Amino acid sequence: MRKISSLFAGAAALFLSTPVLADNHDPMALQAKGLEDTVAYAITEGLTTEIGPRQAGTEAEARARDWSVKKLKALGFQNVRNEPFMMTTWVRGAETAEILSPYPQKMHITALGNSASTGDGGIEAEVAYFDSLAAMRAAPDGSLSGKIAFVTHDMHRTQDGSSYGTYGPARFIGPNLASQKGAAAYVIKSIGTDYHRNPHTGNTNFREGVTPIPAGALSLPDADNLERMIKLAAKTGTPVRMKVMMTPQNIGQQESGNVIAEVTGTDPSKGMILIACHLDSWDLATGAFDDAAGCGIITAAAKNVMDHGQPLRTIRILWAGAEEVGLWGGKAYAEKNKNQNQNHAIAMESDFGADKVWRVEYKFPEAAKDVRTEISQALSPLGISISGPPASGGADIRDIIASNNLAIIDLQQDGTRYFDLHHTPDDTLDKIDPAQLRQNVAAWSTVLSIISNSDADFTMPPKE
Amino acid sequence: MRKISSLFAGAAALFLSTPVLADNHDPMALQAKGLEDTVAYAITEGLTTEIGPRQAGTEAEARARDWSVKKLKALGFQNVRNEPFMMTTWVRGAETAEILSPYPQKMHITALGNSASTGDGGIEAEVAYFDSLAAMRAAPDGSLSGKIAFVTHDMHRTQDGSSYGTYGPARFIGPNLASQKGAAAYVIKSIGTDYHRNPHTGNTNFREGVTPIPAGALSLPDADNLERMIKLAAKTGTPVRMKVMMTPQNIGQQESGNVIAEVTGTDPSKGMILIACHLDSWDLATGAFDDAAGCGIITAAAKNVMDHGQPLRTIRILWAGAEEVGLWGGKAYAEKNKNQNQNHAIAMESDFGADKVWRVEYKFPEAAKDVRTEISQALSPLGISISGPPASGGADIRDIIASNNLAIIDLQQDGTRYFDLHHTPDDTLDKIDPAQLRQNVAAWSTVLSIISNSDADFTMPPKE
Repeated sequence: MRKISSLFAGAAALFLSTPVLADNHDPMALQAKGLEDTVAYAITEGLTTEIGPRQAGTEAEARARDWSVKKLKALGFQNVRNEPFMMTTWVRGAETAEILSPYPQKMHITALGNSASTGDGGIEAEVAYFDSLAAMRAAPDGSLSGKIAFVTHDMHRTQDGSSYGTYGPARFIGPNLASQKGAAAYVIKSIGTDYHRNPHTGNTNFREGVTPIPAGALSLPDADNLERMIKLAAKTGTPVRMKVMMTPQNIGQQESGNVIAEVTGTDPSKGMILIACHLDSWDLATGAFDDAAGCGIITAAAKNVMDHGQPLRTIRILWAGAEEVGLWGGKAYAEKNKNQNQNHAIAMESDFGADKVWRVEYKFPEAAKDVRTEISQALSPLGISISGPPASGGADIRDIIASNNLAIIDLQQDGTRYFDLHHTPDDTLDKIDPAQLRQNVAAWSTVLSIISNSDADFTMPPKE
Repeated sequence: MRKISSLFAGAAALFLSTPVLADNHDPMALQAKGLEDTVAYAITEGLTTEIGPRQAGTEAEARARDWSVKKLKALGFQNVRNEPFMMTTWVRGAETAEILSPYPQKMHITALGNSASTGDGGIEAEVAYFDSLAAMRAAPDGSLSGKIAFVTHDMHRTQDGSSYGTYGPARFIGPNLASQKGAAAYVIKSIGTDYHRNPHTGNTNFREGVTPIPAGALSLPDADNLERMIKLAAKTGTPVRMKVMMTPQNIGQQESGNVIAEVTGTDPSKGMILIACHLDSWDLATGAFDDAAGCGIITAAAKNVMDHGQPLRTIRILWAGAEEVGLWGGKAYAEKNKNQNQNHAIAMESDFGADKVWRVEYKFPEAAKDVRTEISQALSPLGISISGPPASGGADIRDIIASNNLAIIDLQQDGTRYFDLHHTPDDTLDKIDPAQLRQNVAAWSTVLSIISNSDADFTMPPKE
């Protein structure tokens, strides 16, 4: 009941407060306009069609930056620029997998980012099977020596995407652990929830002093097939032997960059609103969900605000580079803007696909609680609920939030089908539902309209 | 109303007729047993897990035959045997595609069966775009000279799969036509209804005297992306250039075979019931839907009949070889059994996935109309409707039906999602819905129980 009481108190506060917005910034008018948006889809279509895959550090990402600068200028934003930075770059090579015995057949595999190479000849070895990362962790040191460790899982779809946190470590840290236990290579059931023959890539990391080993993900149907083979072969004590060939390589320091654009506010002394997405994608797909749509959504909403007249605060758009492969863009942005708290008030990011916003979350100071109430009320017609955890921000704003102690608003998107597509070849334009995309633009327009015109104090209390 | 009247007349005939079946062949008892079946799934799981892809003429198909003979013997069938035949064999090589300009990116392609090779260096050419096969047909002779012809389509899902007939010719005859018009290569939007990055393969044919050219299918998302590029580039008169590399080859005459098993009837003078599926699959997937499930369904139903006591007529199970690549197994079977009308009474096939039977169709002589009515009535509890066209049979029984003028029953499966999976890497065990698979077994058990114990005369009137 405490929760419900606080909701009612919030609503009461709203009705007592005096409107502070000029008519040309009426959030409900912008919301209605957002529901008719075409800009977000055009950006998503343009990036996926005219550029396609745009892995960080590659020539394709550079072409994407050029495209983006041109597009953001054409849309009428100010201070459009590319802020380059350097980053270490890993690129995919050839990749094949097959079961050698007792049930020979080919499988679909893709290398994880930072995987070592098997060399052109590949690696042939017995498969050591674990039904979870915890099971592999329990294996004695050295017990994986010369084997291909295979970890599976039972990940299911969740609206908030939380199963990624539960099962993702098999990718994030599994290869490092397998190497420490002596494995020749490491294979996972893709960290995903679809059943197509498209493996999910994504970064992994080897700690200093740990030898990188070849590490790849099987598609879910292949992983389940391998699991069935292992259980069947075990009945007669027969080992399952597999061949994996993956030839990725590190190509050293390459240039990436953050593309930035602004809607300048009338009062530069007010902290600005930072809104982010990431421009790079994995190499396997055109990156519609991850994250062309996010760039489309935030940009369409900022343009919507701009089209209704200059706001009080500056809105800065950050299309970050090199997110997928280590959050390089977010780090570079934070480094460039550290300890300039006065310049940033609130940070927001869109990087969870293009399905509808179902919940808003906040990390707000007490002084801004009326703004919070106003936003929640204004989002209600879009079917957006408010009971959730505090906002935590996205990957590209993580470091600027940490270094500058910023307020945060998270417009949480429905992630039910996100891990069907995430980091697979299937992340393509056809997966975008235009109606849900427009609901995102409407929600972002509503929020940006309110906060960019609010003179509330968003300064967070000092961290403990 | 004529239709409804005839249904009522049929029902009346049923109630007037005397049961001719022994209790141990009670079709409703077999139907109930079919709904609890585990044999069909076990066969589907075994073929997809222990063998996997089993392209005709390859060593994998030979392994599948050995597995099948062993399995059918273990299930208790009689006269289990492999009847070998020779066939010309085409095998896939490497395959890649990319757009070179003006929007460079890689695409997912797969070669069509009987495609020529581009050679290792591939073919680079301008794309000539057609929104339908008819549009390409209308192109002047020679106008495709040196170009890569690209044909797209607007195929949608249909319950009876009829859109395959509408749009399939772009694959069946498109390459032949493109070659006649001088094209260097031919690319289609996959003949399918899914939106995954998995192209659909399938056979094509070049007529005698027409030079085979490289012919491949793009995944649907890739084809739509290419179409967007072409339309965008056309605004500035810019040609779209593409590179295709596919290196399939013909490896000449190879051995395939039909695996046959029987439930012998008490009266060898009565014509037998031929039930068919095909054992071979395309090379891209484990062939669960196409057609391990079909073999599972017919075999589980025949075993259900056998387990309830010896039927009057022999049921012959045909797991045909080499269906996908030219119906070699069905042709070999018909050749071996031609002009032996007395030995075959009725032919049936299951080769349209594993989703529920929604309609029964017949090609029956007038003399057997009471049997038809009895079958229709008995299938009704399974939700199977009866208003449809005459039965036409499946690919593997086409030739024996034609040469021996056989009666036919078609248990039509729901094909709504069939062309999401057909000939793609996605045709894997996880696509099987066990409940719908069991409904198939129940329907087949019901029908087989009735017809294998019927002494009606199924002889078709002579063809005109």
